[in-house]
Amino acid sequence: MRVTQLFTKTSKTVPADETSKNAQLLIQAGYVHKEMAGVYAYLPLGLRVLENIKRIVREEMNAINGQELIMTNLQPKELWEETTRWDEKVVDVWFKTKLQDGTELGLAWSHEEPIMGMMQRYVQSYKDLPTSVYQFQTKLRNELRAKSGVMRGREFVMKDMYSLHASAEDLDTYYNQVIEAYKRVYERLGIGEDTYVTFASGGAFTKFSHEFQTVCDAGEDVLFVHKGKNVAVNEEVLDEAVKELGINKDELEKVKSAEVGNIFNFGTDKSESMKIFYTDEDGHQKPIYLASYGIGVTRLIGVIAEKMSDEKGLVWHDNIAPFRVYLARLGTEDAVTQAADKLYDELQAQGVEVLYDDRDARPGEKFADADLLGIPHRVVVSAKTVEQGAFEYKARTSSENSIIDLEKLKSTLTASA
Amino acid sequence: MRVTQLFTKTSKTVPADETSKNAQLLIQAGYVHKEMAGVYAYLPLGLRVLENIKRIVREEMNAINGQELIMTNLQPKELWEETTRWDEKVVDVWFKTKLQDGTELGLAWSHEEPIMGMMQRYVQSYKDLPTSVYQFQTKLRNELRAKSGVMRGREFVMKDMYSLHASAEDLDTYYNQVIEAYKRVYERLGIGEDTYVTFASGGAFTKFSHEFQTVCDAGEDVLFVHKGKNVAVNEEVLDEAVKELGINKDELEKVKSAEVGNIFNFGTDKSESMKIFYTDEDGHQKPIYLASYGIGVTRLIGVIAEKMSDEKGLVWHDNIAPFRVYLARLGTEDAVTQAADKLYDELQAQGVEVLYDDRDARPGEKFADADLLGIPHRVVVSAKTVEQGAFEYKARTSSENSIIDLEKLKSTLTASA
Repeated sequence: MRVTQLFTKTSKTVPADETSKNAQLLIQAGYVHKEMAGVYAYLPLGLRVLENIKRIVREEMNAINGQELIMTNLQPKELWEETTRWDEKVVDVWFKTKLQDGTELGLAWSHEEPIMGMMQRYVQSYKDLPTSVYQFQTKLRNELRAKSGVMRGREFVMKDMYSLHASAEDLDTYYNQVIEAYKRVYERLGIGEDTYVTFASGGAFTKFSHEFQTVCDAGEDVLFVHKGKNVAVNEEVLDEAVKELGINKDELEKVKSAEVGNIFNFGTDKSESMKIFYTDEDGHQKPIYLASYGIGVTRLIGVIAEKMSDEKGLVWHDNIAPFRVYLARLGTEDAVTQAADKLYDELQAQGVEVLYDDRDARPGEKFADADLLGIPHRVVVSAKTVEQGAFEYKARTSSENSIIDLEKLKSTLTASA
Repeated sequence: MRVTQLFTKTSKTVPADETSKNAQLLIQAGYVHKEMAGVYAYLPLGLRVLENIKRIVREEMNAINGQELIMTNLQPKELWEETTRWDEKVVDVWFKTKLQDGTELGLAWSHEEPIMGMMQRYVQSYKDLPTSVYQFQTKLRNELRAKSGVMRGREFVMKDMYSLHASAEDLDTYYNQVIEAYKRVYERLGIGEDTYVTFASGGAFTKFSHEFQTVCDAGEDVLFVHKGKNVAVNEEVLDEAVKELGINKDELEKVKSAEVGNIFNFGTDKSESMKIFYTDEDGHQKPIYLASYGIGVTRLIGVIAEKMSDEKGLVWHDNIAPFRVYLARLGTEDAVTQAADKLYDELQAQGVEVLYDDRDARPGEKFADADLLGIPHRVVVSAKTVEQGAFEYKARTSSENSIIDLEKLKSTLTASA
């Protein structure tokens, strides 16, 4: 894409109403637009990052036989009354609304109950189990405060998966497959090393639940990490967990962290309260085991923006950057324009996504934008490079640039994919 | 995908609470789940159709320089008060909700005002115009009645595009480009021949607005069509339009139709009421011309299900079918299983999407499902076809099947893409 065609622009002004680094950077770079506190629109560059993350998550969920679907935003009261979760004393983040005839409706803050209600039609026999479904859904949560930018919004995109099983053992097996799939997701997003499977407070059926926590100064959680054993414990269950796991408390490092995923074992809780059963091999009615698995997709954008940024701006990983290459044309001489246009076409033909800065702007302005936007690879075409028959290349993560020929440039840019 | 892995199942029972053919068929085939009246979830097969339609629309919007983004569901009251549209006497389909501190919020039924509010940050000068943005958004509309299945829902997916211009002439030029892009969309969806650019009642700035109407018995509109001139007029403006266009009323054919797209010229209306201006070449503040362009994506699924179906079920066009091929394995002999597995792998390797019926079920059941699901091409592997060293092929739209060899089969299935 050409910068002159992109309607968003960068801004040097830090937005006065944002205290979080992620929202400040994402707004200044034109990735998001703040509609109101905790509610952000995703502009073209931001949407590209969002879609890249979704693609990675989708591939990993499909790989463990997750079936993608999309549930609804409007939800009937009855489904949630069956489990007492319609009550605002039980769930304090509901947004609710009404039909014209006065019927109360809920707005999607979660989907366990609607999923079970829908599955009732399809899961009747042991032969229909196990099964696993997921969606990328816009969730609405009526948070009392919203001050962490896109890390904790009132409206956000979540990948939520639900697996249904005939037995606790079968659920456990799949649960562990999901843990491995989640690890691959964070690895591909470039935060694998700093992301821990964490012991957190459990539900009705398990002593601990599992969260995925990423070390992050802007996070809302406190984690105790054992790097040698690759184990982490949420502060809220520290004493219980060290006892259970036989870890020496002194060996743990205390860090701030942000939750980037959670998995939750509901056991037969939902099945029993909603009276949704399957028939086993002997013809008996049995409750269904349910687990749910979330990844906050827009939240991840915030966490990554916090962690992978420097004083100059954002720093995206190759796998999720909105464009892989920032091509800066310096000068308007015919030879320069022709060389830059040619490279733009060639890279695109090779499947390399290029943001082509074809503006008549100063080099300093172009370089500052390339850094603020956080595009991983910067290539400069100028009178000087044309004369040399080469290109100037710099990685976003490096302060050094180098002059390289077309062959080397292409291999560098395609290798990074 | 293997049918044994798909969690949805077909049903022979027509849902008693649905009067519309589209909802009946889509529910029986397991494409959608009814959450409540006018609110449908899209299950794996339905989501695949939805995504196929989105892909076609996206390609055509990108081709006319539309920039994709995603606005928000939660909307602030203030934006809509500026244009009087917060008032439920002006807009009667609002769903509204509240923050915990009592602040009223709107739920997205449309986005002209939020788009203009967001654009205020980026469009300051004539140099920033024209520009065009679009999204695929879940819209919520508090319809009094919901009885047309997915054709008119309380929750639905819409592609809405907005173009901003410095002059009425520039808007007109782009407006006509969008009309051509829309024609290409309907063509690719397989309803091009039955879809008309239609004169409908105008807005503040134009005598007529334009709708895209598809001839459809289940439609809510009445159209007067001049096939020779390829012109259609909505009943609501018949007298004015025939006068204006110089058409003889007797030459018009009266048909029922469904609106599948609309385009609307707001002129400088929104810009002036919201006080959002650009600076022209002489430094003067000028109002911005706005047009909006909608395509109801989930509505299209309903219209297509109504039009392209027969007594046996759905009939999808190749371009939007959830899978291109229904591969039915008849029998469980090793040779049959091996031949079917091999064909499944080979077709997938060629990029042909296959739904592989690997169930131990009767041939009649498999054929009935293939027809109900509406997969365009059916291939049978049986003891007989293995013996012949060939395959049995039938198109969904044909009642004849034929025995063809692998070469012919592959060319048939790849040619249809």
